[in-house]
Amino acid sequence: MRVFGIDPGSVRTGYGCIDSDGSRHRLVTCGAIAASPRLAFPERLLAIHARLTALLTECRPDGVAVESLFYAVNARSALQLGHARGVVLLAAVQAGLPIAEYTPAEVKRAVVGYGRAEKTQVQEMIRLLLGLQDAPSPLDVSDALAVAICHSHTAASPRTALEEAAPRGGRSWRHYKPATRVVE
Amino acid sequence: MRVFGIDPGSVRTGYGCIDSDGSRHRLVTCGAIAASPRLAFPERLLAIHARLTALLTECRPDGVAVESLFYAVNARSALQLGHARGVVLLAAVQAGLPIAEYTPAEVKRAVVGYGRAEKTQVQEMIRLLLGLQDAPSPLDVSDALAVAICHSHTAASPRTALEEAAPRGGRSWRHYKPATRVVE
Repeated sequence: MRVFGIDPGSVRTGYGCIDSDGSRHRLVTCGAIAASPRLAFPERLLAIHARLTALLTECRPDGVAVESLFYAVNARSALQLGHARGVVLLAAVQAGLPIAEYTPAEVKRAVVGYGRAEKTQVQEMIRLLLGLQDAPSPLDVSDALAVAICHSHTAASPRTALEEAAPRGGRSWRHYKPATRVVE
Repeated sequence: MRVFGIDPGSVRTGYGCIDSDGSRHRLVTCGAIAASPRLAFPERLLAIHARLTALLTECRPDGVAVESLFYAVNARSALQLGHARGVVLLAAVQAGLPIAEYTPAEVKRAVVGYGRAEKTQVQEMIRLLLGLQDAPSPLDVSDALAVAICHSHTAASPRTALEEAAPRGGRSWRHYKPATRVVE
């Protein structure tokens, strides 16, 4: 399966696309959408949304995995990040793709085997898992690849997360599955 | 000038469009986009974005005014609201419209003359200012109309906010003005 991982941010949004059978992974593409801080905030959202939409059309993944963030950040940072995540989720749902969310601890556990691993440990494991010469950087990129790998594990497990009924409504959703694929 | 006011929310997004010369106001249309809580969260964002995009095309306002929110909310609520605001701002910037943000206190001061007025006082003033028989409800709708009226005052003042150069970048932006109108 092809998974498109995203680490959203209002200044830099990391992305990483992999092909995976759940244990072996191959890098398709990765990078960061740098929404220049010189741009007005609404234009940064526009840039993130437009670039992601183009990347999803290009990569044609089977699903999108996004890091969730519910730990201690202040309300102002959360509001800022929420704007970026909003347009990221919009691009994915507009592309008719299933979306899964994972907490940072779940991602670290899946990649390093330890939920409180350092970001640099995650980065090094990503390099090994994808058989790359250099570790993907900046950290937004390795984090995006990490959430993609985390999802490939979950999706490949016998009782796959994506097979579960998408929880409708409520504030706590983890896996969203569109009723019909908008884009094939 | 025609102003489109928005009070974003992840469950209900109020909107209100007015024609105004800065002192006299006329209601064009108002309502609430109810993104059913039964819908998965990404689909609610899709519904808000799609409906707003259609409304902006229909109403062809000169500018969009959105309530900002930097007061005490917890990080989780702020993140949730941020998602909704993200797709709201995206719809406005995709329509090539100038966007202005006002704090709840600024809106109340503009409409009731008192920054700590109750929402129901705002609602009643909106009814009077727009010469309506019934007060617009729910509160999301009167709040959206209030931010539109607030903007019409600012925009009509000698040194209009929209005439000021749009502050580029930074976290604190109040008024965004597109370089070129995408939609005419």
